[in-house]
Amino acid sequence: MSGANNTTADYRILDRDSLPEYLAGIPAVVEVLGPGADLNVREIGDGNLNFVFHVSNAADASKAVIVKQAVPYLRLAGEDWPLGRDRMTYEIRALSLYNQLVPGLVPKAYHTDEQMSTLIMEYLGDHIILRLGMIDGIQYPKVAEHIGYFMAETLFATSAWSMGSTERRQLMEQFTMNAELCKLSEDFIFTFPYMEHGSNYSNPATDVWARENIHTDSQYKLDVLAFKNLFVSKTEALLHGDLHSGSMMVNQADSYVIDMEFAFFGPIAFDVGKIIGNFLLCCTSHYYRSGGTEYRQWLLQQIEVIWNTFGSHFVERWTQAGESTLLTNGFLSNDEQAQYRQTYMHTLLQDAVGFAACSMTRRTLGIAGVADIRDIEDADIRSKLEIANLKLSKRLMTGRKSLNSIDDLLALIKNFYSSPIL
Amino acid sequence: MSGANNTTADYRILDRDSLPEYLAGIPAVVEVLGPGADLNVREIGDGNLNFVFHVSNAADASKAVIVKQAVPYLRLAGEDWPLGRDRMTYEIRALSLYNQLVPGLVPKAYHTDEQMSTLIMEYLGDHIILRLGMIDGIQYPKVAEHIGYFMAETLFATSAWSMGSTERRQLMEQFTMNAELCKLSEDFIFTFPYMEHGSNYSNPATDVWARENIHTDSQYKLDVLAFKNLFVSKTEALLHGDLHSGSMMVNQADSYVIDMEFAFFGPIAFDVGKIIGNFLLCCTSHYYRSGGTEYRQWLLQQIEVIWNTFGSHFVERWTQAGESTLLTNGFLSNDEQAQYRQTYMHTLLQDAVGFAACSMTRRTLGIAGVADIRDIEDADIRSKLEIANLKLSKRLMTGRKSLNSIDDLLALIKNFYSSPIL
Repeated sequence: MSGANNTTADYRILDRDSLPEYLAGIPAVVEVLGPGADLNVREIGDGNLNFVFHVSNAADASKAVIVKQAVPYLRLAGEDWPLGRDRMTYEIRALSLYNQLVPGLVPKAYHTDEQMSTLIMEYLGDHIILRLGMIDGIQYPKVAEHIGYFMAETLFATSAWSMGSTERRQLMEQFTMNAELCKLSEDFIFTFPYMEHGSNYSNPATDVWARENIHTDSQYKLDVLAFKNLFVSKTEALLHGDLHSGSMMVNQADSYVIDMEFAFFGPIAFDVGKIIGNFLLCCTSHYYRSGGTEYRQWLLQQIEVIWNTFGSHFVERWTQAGESTLLTNGFLSNDEQAQYRQTYMHTLLQDAVGFAACSMTRRTLGIAGVADIRDIEDADIRSKLEIANLKLSKRLMTGRKSLNSIDDLLALIKNFYSSPIL
Repeated sequence: MSGANNTTADYRILDRDSLPEYLAGIPAVVEVLGPGADLNVREIGDGNLNFVFHVSNAADASKAVIVKQAVPYLRLAGEDWPLGRDRMTYEIRALSLYNQLVPGLVPKAYHTDEQMSTLIMEYLGDHIILRLGMIDGIQYPKVAEHIGYFMAETLFATSAWSMGSTERRQLMEQFTMNAELCKLSEDFIFTFPYMEHGSNYSNPATDVWARENIHTDSQYKLDVLAFKNLFVSKTEALLHGDLHSGSMMVNQADSYVIDMEFAFFGPIAFDVGKIIGNFLLCCTSHYYRSGGTEYRQWLLQQIEVIWNTFGSHFVERWTQAGESTLLTNGFLSNDEQAQYRQTYMHTLLQDAVGFAACSMTRRTLGIAGVADIRDIEDADIRSKLEIANLKLSKRLMTGRKSLNSIDDLLALIKNFYSSPIL
């Protein structure tokens, strides 16, 4: 089974001019926007792959939808980098499943159109992209809990600890061919940033440091390759696949996870590690962005809350689960199961830290940087922050096997940040 | 994509009486058997799942074919254990691929019929099932090399070290839904033998020992569950999935691997460990079956040859490989690659030993025993050998993480066998 919608028949790229007419033909959307309304259309995506529009009733901005369309190339790189529109099929499948598993934590879909590779979703009112809020130093009291809960629910429910053997294989089959986006991750997260490659970002002082301390650090690169191998070969659960602060819309009360087009069966630690890595990238940026220590401390606390919420909910689901692919009544006693879970969560933390390390380096040296750092105009400042992120990535990678708890991880991070960053 | 041939239209179960007429309608088979020939038909399978017939020209026994048909239940358990015929689809797909990868080591297919879930293959002349030859103490000078070479070629070629990202996912998709046979392995290799279960074999003295030393050994069961998790979630390469001495036809010169209906994407160490475990089961049986030490020594030598042939060919392919999912020019130096391979092969050996341990216990306590042991009529003798196999399984599981080489493994095994077995 594959999404195979790469034929050009019935497909056209939507833009600000053509969107109103397209939307006028979809009753479910007309109902939201109001019949015959004048529409305001603006492009809002900071994603790297697709076009995302906000469309609202010109007379009543509270009536609005989000339109997301996949184009047959990598938006970030332009038409010279072809990329199948199939990815929207996987986003639709993942969003449908998440609507069942975590309905309050993902947007509602009003309309899906596989031929047009288009998804029309709930407009999230007064929410903003978490990354932008974090750059501005805004604290969101619920976001870490929401992230932890989202991961626990979606990752446990699609794992072999929860699903039966055959139903799990049926779900796997629905995502196996999300091949192009998996390949993007393989290349841009786990390969190009660690070597000389034309796609990489460049900042002279950072380049020099990377050449001497990343490209030539054998053990670090061997570790990265081991994590790439996990990414490629560990089909543990259905991952979001791109869970970072740019894939969340938040306000003080609510958090919504978006952009699940990278969804595939992979290692649970990847989703967990990627979000941790992104909080650390932001934390480093605030050595420049904010005066005091308060926001940085808040960010590190959120890493603790993310892990603890994720871990406790994941283990709770596991403890309550009935029989599944990996759970058989009578095989292990309750004590033995608890012992297995403890070892498992311990390894999961260590692997998440390894994936966090990869995320930090890819976002520093690779094509797709984070605005937290890349938007800082002063190249010298930026380079100091970039090198700090690379150093922290290396510390995480080297130190991960000594970590027995989230406290150990936070101690390692705080120890790192106790040296001057700027 | 799925084999979905479980409709009953156009399907009937073949037997000795109906086979000749069925075969007479297939020109490619008539050509082999001779037009209008009287046919001798005998059932020959010692497999647990399917019916296997030898069909020959009554006047010229050199003209013969093998007919293998999947029936909609587990042959070993009977019609009360339904099992989809889809498995033949996966055997056909795997055999087709193996015909390309290792043409001299698998039988040629004359005719495949997915509607009838039937495969008609080359008759392997004066070959016998390896297990039966090994029970009789026959030495096969080439078999270990052939096994090692078969595994190296098939496992490397279908791994992410050899295949590109997208083509690998396409191949994975062809086997993802071999769900029923994967479920059988999950249950019968990794679950039921380690607990009280109605399907298990029973021999009173063995049962008592197992209850006190297997069912209640927490660490051993936790290790088994970890290997079950690898089996379920590590999609490393296309495995044969049931590679034991009953899945090979041999003579002094040639070896053919058969019975690949369990083929699926799993951990490479599973195929490697299963065959090692089966050589060990046979070795233990020869403490009763043969007088001297010669055959046992030969069997242990074969384990060494299997591993060394497998390892050297696998690494050779890896060294020669071009770019693939996991290999990118310019990412690692040659020395770094060599270092990665060394670590990888080291872990692979340890994991293979863990899977060997699981195989030995499942073949001892589970429903599907090996004739090497189960055909010994004296229950006391049998129990002593069974308990020896369980003890060795536990030693392998406990000791695997200290093994740095095949020499270490053989030293562990020889040390075990230095204590009295009978």
